[in-house]
Amino acid sequence: MAARAMANFALAELRLVNPRDGWPNPDAGPAAAGADAVLGGARVAQSANEALADCALTFATTVRHRDSSTPVVTPREAAARMREGAARGLRSGILFGPERAGLTADDLAGIQTIVTCPVDPGFGSLNLAQAVLLLAYEWFQAGPVEPPRHAVPAPPATHGEIAALIAHLDGELDAAGFFHVPDRAPATRRTLAALLARPGFTSEEVRTLRGVVRALADLRRRRAQPPSGAIV
Amino acid sequence: MAARAMANFALAELRLVNPRDGWPNPDAGPAAAGADAVLGGARVAQSANEALADCALTFATTVRHRDSSTPVVTPREAAARMREGAARGLRSGILFGPERAGLTADDLAGIQTIVTCPVDPGFGSLNLAQAVLLLAYEWFQAGPVEPPRHAVPAPPATHGEIAALIAHLDGELDAAGFFHVPDRAPATRRTLAALLARPGFTSEEVRTLRGVVRALADLRRRRAQPPSGAIV
Repeated sequence: MAARAMANFALAELRLVNPRDGWPNPDAGPAAAGADAVLGGARVAQSANEALADCALTFATTVRHRDSSTPVVTPREAAARMREGAARGLRSGILFGPERAGLTADDLAGIQTIVTCPVDPGFGSLNLAQAVLLLAYEWFQAGPVEPPRHAVPAPPATHGEIAALIAHLDGELDAAGFFHVPDRAPATRRTLAALLARPGFTSEEVRTLRGVVRALADLRRRRAQPPSGAIV
Repeated sequence: MAARAMANFALAELRLVNPRDGWPNPDAGPAAAGADAVLGGARVAQSANEALADCALTFATTVRHRDSSTPVVTPREAAARMREGAARGLRSGILFGPERAGLTADDLAGIQTIVTCPVDPGFGSLNLAQAVLLLAYEWFQAGPVEPPRHAVPAPPATHGEIAALIAHLDGELDAAGFFHVPDRAPATRRTLAALLARPGFTSEEVRTLRGVVRALADLRRRRAQPPSGAIV
């Protein structure tokens, strides 16, 4: 049903993160009613990070607003941002949650923008295919926008570059004993991921930040060893 | 699924026209996931005219544009018109077609406005629940509008008043031999229905038009009889 929703609105790139029943899944065919091209071209990824790696703009859908610093927009606003990105040659990815459980806080931590559809607060239970339909619909209705005429800022980093920065920092912080209270480590990791995903760093800025992490880690390692030639 | 789509967007009044499998239908429950109030309150009607009788604004959804004089709007435009109508105290009804067959030309003839969702022309196969979801979504996003401050025009006729005018005219024309070419009668009837549904007549105007039909029919009957007191 999600593939069918996509096909109605000219979206073809479906990526599946760890599909529960494996892939290809023969049960997916009949429900899609002609969306075979979308299903046939679906790619399987091992993680949300892998699925989003080449995207410069990342969105994730949640039904209810969660307590986080990640900005929240409506489907219509998300569609406008994706079209503006497309006019600058930037790829967008929308992460949808599994049917019942939804996305976890960890899934959402590295995402730039949350998309929440305004629904009747007394009901509010859009399923996966309905959420895909509404996002695809808004994307199609928004239509292509003109490329910007003024000077374009440097290209933003892709999700993969940001994810690699987060993993690099995480590894060095772990080695430095930063996560020494095990109970707090998951929340701290989410805070760091959200903090690095948000500002829309450029590729260049991400490279600079990775240099900063490397330099600090090297400094720590040098300090941990006795300086060569020192009198102990 | 249609009831669930409605419940997400605070729509509660479902009317079913001649449901194929009868009503209540135990199979309708599980798919609705909490939309029980919508299903429990659903009313069964014998015809589209009966279902729409109390509505002043009537819409019907079609996937492809048909060759007719009835105006066509997008779901977003339809939602804006429904909200403007609601601000004036007018009820709106949206007629959706059965799953595969869709609405017939006869179903559409008496409807004021056709709603067609822009979709990828290469695919374009929204199912019933998807069409309901998109209309309900747009209705909810449009939000209530302010009642007009300037003088409000006389209230438009309800669908029931227009349908009664059409039936009245149809009966008298039939008696007058207007439909004397049987092959052409269905198309002629549709043309008349569409012509009368379109202008947004007020209740007062519909009463006037029924008086016109009555007067012409009486004139025809009097001419068909010899005038009383005449010398034959």
